Amino acid sequence: MAKGLIPSRDRLHEIIFEADTPAGKAFDVALLWVIILSLVLVMLESVEELNQRFGTVFFVLEWIITVLFSIEYALRIYVVTKPLKYVTSFYGIVDLLSILPSYLSLVFDGTHYLSTIRALRLLRVFRVLKLASFMKESTILVTALRASRDKITVFLVAVLTVVMIIGSMMYWIEGGANSGFTSIPRSMYWAIVTITTVGYGDIAPATDLGQFLSAILMVMGYGVIAVPTGIIGAEISQADRKSREKLNTISCQACSREGHDNDAVHCKYCGEVL
Amino acid sequence: MAKGLIPSRDRLHEIIFEADTPAGKAFDVALLWVIILSLVLVMLESVEELNQRFGTVFFVLEWIITVLFSIEYALRIYVVTKPLKYVTSFYGIVDLLSILPSYLSLVFDGTHYLSTIRALRLLRVFRVLKLASFMKESTILVTALRASRDKITVFLVAVLTVVMIIGSMMYWIEGGANSGFTSIPRSMYWAIVTITTVGYGDIAPATDLGQFLSAILMVMGYGVIAVPTGIIGAEISQADRKSREKLNTISCQACSREGHDNDAVHCKYCGEVL
Amino acid sequence: MAKGLIPSRDRLHEIIFEADTPAGKAFDVALLWVIILSLVLVMLESVEELNQRFGTVFFVLEWIITVLFSIEYALRIYVVTKPLKYVTSFYGIVDLLSILPSYLSLVFDGTHYLSTIRALRLLRVFRVLKLASFMKESTILVTALRASRDKITVFLVAVLTVVMIIGSMMYWIEGGANSGFTSIPRSMYWAIVTITTVGYGDIAPATDLGQFLSAILMVMGYGVIAVPTGIIGAEISQADRKSREKLNTISCQACSREGHDNDAVHCKYCGEVL
Amino acid sequence: MAKGLIPSRDRLHEIIFEADTPAGKAFDVALLWVIILSLVLVMLESVEELNQRFGTVFFVLEWIITVLFSIEYALRIYVVTKPLKYVTSFYGIVDLLSILPSYLSLVFDGTHYLSTIRALRLLRVFRVLKLASFMKESTILVTALRASRDKITVFLVAVLTVVMIIGSMMYWIEGGANSGFTSIPRSMYWAIVTITTVGYGDIAPATDLGQFLSAILMVMGYGVIAVPTGIIGAEISQADRKSREKLNTISCQACSREGHDNDAVHCKYCGEVL
Repeated sequence: MAKGLIPSRDRLHEIIFEADTPAGKAFDVALLWVIILSLVLVMLESVEELNQRFGTVFFVLEWIITVLFSIEYALRIYVVTKPLKYVTSFYGIVDLLSILPSYLSLVFDGTHYLSTIRALRLLRVFRVLKLASFMKESTILVTALRASRDKITVFLVAVLTVVMIIGSMMYWIEGGANSGFTSIPRSMYWAIVTITTVGYGDIAPATDLGQFLSAILMVMGYGVIAVPTGIIGAEISQADRKSREKLNTISCQACSREGHDNDAVHCKYCGEVL
Repeated sequence: MAKGLIPSRDRLHEIIFEADTPAGKAFDVALLWVIILSLVLVMLESVEELNQRFGTVFFVLEWIITVLFSIEYALRIYVVTKPLKYVTSFYGIVDLLSILPSYLSLVFDGTHYLSTIRALRLLRVFRVLKLASFMKESTILVTALRASRDKITVFLVAVLTVVMIIGSMMYWIEGGANSGFTSIPRSMYWAIVTITTVGYGDIAPATDLGQFLSAILMVMGYGVIAVPTGIIGAEISQADRKSREKLNTISCQACSREGHDNDAVHCKYCGEVL
Repeated sequence: MAKGLIPSRDRLHEIIFEADTPAGKAFDVALLWVIILSLVLVMLESVEELNQRFGTVFFVLEWIITVLFSIEYALRIYVVTKPLKYVTSFYGIVDLLSILPSYLSLVFDGTHYLSTIRALRLLRVFRVLKLASFMKESTILVTALRASRDKITVFLVAVLTVVMIIGSMMYWIEGGANSGFTSIPRSMYWAIVTITTVGYGDIAPATDLGQFLSAILMVMGYGVIAVPTGIIGAEISQADRKSREKLNTISCQACSREGHDNDAVHCKYCGEVL
Repeated sequence: MAKGLIPSRDRLHEIIFEADTPAGKAFDVALLWVIILSLVLVMLESVEELNQRFGTVFFVLEWIITVLFSIEYALRIYVVTKPLKYVTSFYGIVDLLSILPSYLSLVFDGTHYLSTIRALRLLRVFRVLKLASFMKESTILVTALRASRDKITVFLVAVLTVVMIIGSMMYWIEGGANSGFTSIPRSMYWAIVTITTVGYGDIAPATDLGQFLSAILMVMGYGVIAVPTGIIGAEISQADRKSREKLNTISCQACSREGHDNDAVHCKYCGEVL
């Protein structure tokens, strides 16, 4: 009798981890909406007026969702063949972090606001639901970002060096001017606010020399914003081109390998005529 | 007798919807100036001092224009063969929204300021007047934006996820610091102000940890601004290239090769007259 | 006797308008330094403390320079063959505007600060001194900007339409919130401050709805900043390529015209073998 | 006896200037950590609360590091064959500037905060430790920046001219409005804050005309930010391409054509083994 009601471990795996069967797809779509609901709940709860009026409703719904997510997490561990591998994987950690803040809020106040980390769970849902064209585009973006990682690192190290030197110069210049440059770390915060052209104005130079140095930093940031743009731009257009070329690709009849140039006559791996 | 005074339905259609006849062109040019006049009126009216002095003039002119636009809207419905299709089209909705705020202002106070939506009516006038070179350029831009829609969507979803997670972390960190992070939605507003490098400074982190997290968000936004630039840049240059190639697809009659310049008289490969 | 002292009109033209002779070059270099000195003077004069101490020195120097520039302007009119053409040319107008503010300051207070327009005079000096490599680069930039003029115009019209509509919506939403949105023109100023990511914070939304709408405007501006970058970027790389190709160009032996592609075998104008 | 303890001048040169031997590598890694420690120290020392509690510790550690750096500097002068060339080289000056602020702080108060210039010493460590892939990327970036130097100079001169003219116009317009435009240099600072889209808001226009002019400046800055992006972007993609081509210039021995992929075994044109 229980056989019909409680699905087998294999069937559960299919429902929870895949979306090819109707049940699997229904599970993922339901999960999508529960995640979005839980995110909206956490946001609304943080608004003072709403929390005073609907506090209890929010509290109850939050815990229902937390319990549901906990059951789901337990089931996921139960159905996978290698539980440890799942627990230590990216999605496993995200799943755990999604429920931890709620339980921690029993001990520490306010931590359940951190459960917006659940937003990351949407990544898996998107992947499972195979929103194809979006997946292709995000692959291109991720490829481009990965390819430009080294250049971006070099660039960021250079920017941080400038931030550190200009930050301590500003601390030295503006230190006594009561304009917010109270320590080198805070001056570095200001330098980052400035070089990224955010410019809050919570800390702003008041002396002539300070304003002159700031102006130089701004023009530098202005010219330099072109660097990551140039780097990533070049990589995106290349990743884009490659992704388009792949669709036109011929595989060698002899060695069946792909990736030949459009003007290739012979296979570049075995020399066979294409 | 009336025949000469009241134009036929066909003639009216020609005047109102097209710009090929002198009357049609005159109508569209007049419409252009009435729209601009009405936009200037709404703007000036909102300035307190001017409204106190010229309030009555503004009021009367506004209603004259509203009545004119209403008559025009009625005529458009009258002359088209499929009125329902016009009413539900983009331009039909814009035409309606252009007169609605004035009528609504009889019931609700201040809504007539929303009649600046009339600015969108300029789009049709531009299109009808066939400002050719501008139309070509805007086609290129629209094509580029449409082609990059999927990539931009993926990018925006990623940015919003970051905004949500960092926003709630900042609410948790800065919540008690009296620095404006009064709820998660407001913290998300701050995160958007920061990641887009706008940086009003109406909400700014006050704690050390908050400033550290902000600095990371800024550097992230700074690196990441390159992504839409790269995406759209690539698409624009491609749309541009395609638009130029279209004009120039003459193949040589002798050697049938393509790729000649626009000013070429002879084939650059075999010397044959093109 | 006077012949040796007072140079002829032709000789004066050579000195003032060209830089090929030693005298002409000396004149332009002197002019360069006098312009820079006069700019520094105007700047220093505007600083209250310095003006109180050195006011008289500044005043006397300013008038000496103004008189020198006036003499130069008169001489330029005297030596050119078509005075009217010079007076109405770009440089003629700049020369006049460089001395006008000083004379106007006799009637209207403070206008002589506007004499920083003299900075534009540097353009001619740069051109006359033929700072070759810089001239080439600026030609490329100007070509690129001119080629993208139509696209930029379309883009700016679109941005201004968005600014107008969002501006009046914000005036409607935030009007009573005492947050600086006191009229539609001022709201449009705020919208421009926001969409360009400047973000002073002198006017910032205070209501929830206003902050939501601002967030949308910011993300829009963030995505849209890519458009001019894409446009100009494409044009610069093209202008750059053309400027490099020109240097490698072969002229046809038959018709001596240039501008052939690198892979061209025959002249594209007359069909002759290159 | 001393022979084993005190290394020879040659051996010292190897240890201090190179990283090929174990001792040399250990020296550079140790140097890396001492530099980072000293940077962290200077930063923490500037935080008032920490300085009050650990002031003495910071002071002692700072002087230990300064003495170590001084010994290192002396040794570097001792072991190189041409001391003067080292002292006047970029790294020689950086090494001196790294220890100077500490000694100056005996005479002038607070100058030791400037010792963050030590961050520049990291450059050599990176170079000596041959972080290969990073070096290649930074070479590409430096090449791109150097190639675009002339264009950037032209661009900056144009921006500065605009800043000067708009700055003095704003001083004239806003001068009496008590909104921070107290002198032309300060107005130019504001113009730079605005055109680079930083927008602190410490100085912001208050008059209608001032806000109108600011709006124009912003839109200009917005359109113009594309220029350095376009310039550097084009150079980066070119430098990138060149760097890739360098690695891959094998021409086929049979047909002598180039352009093969890095993983190619056979010529893609004739099928010959490469």
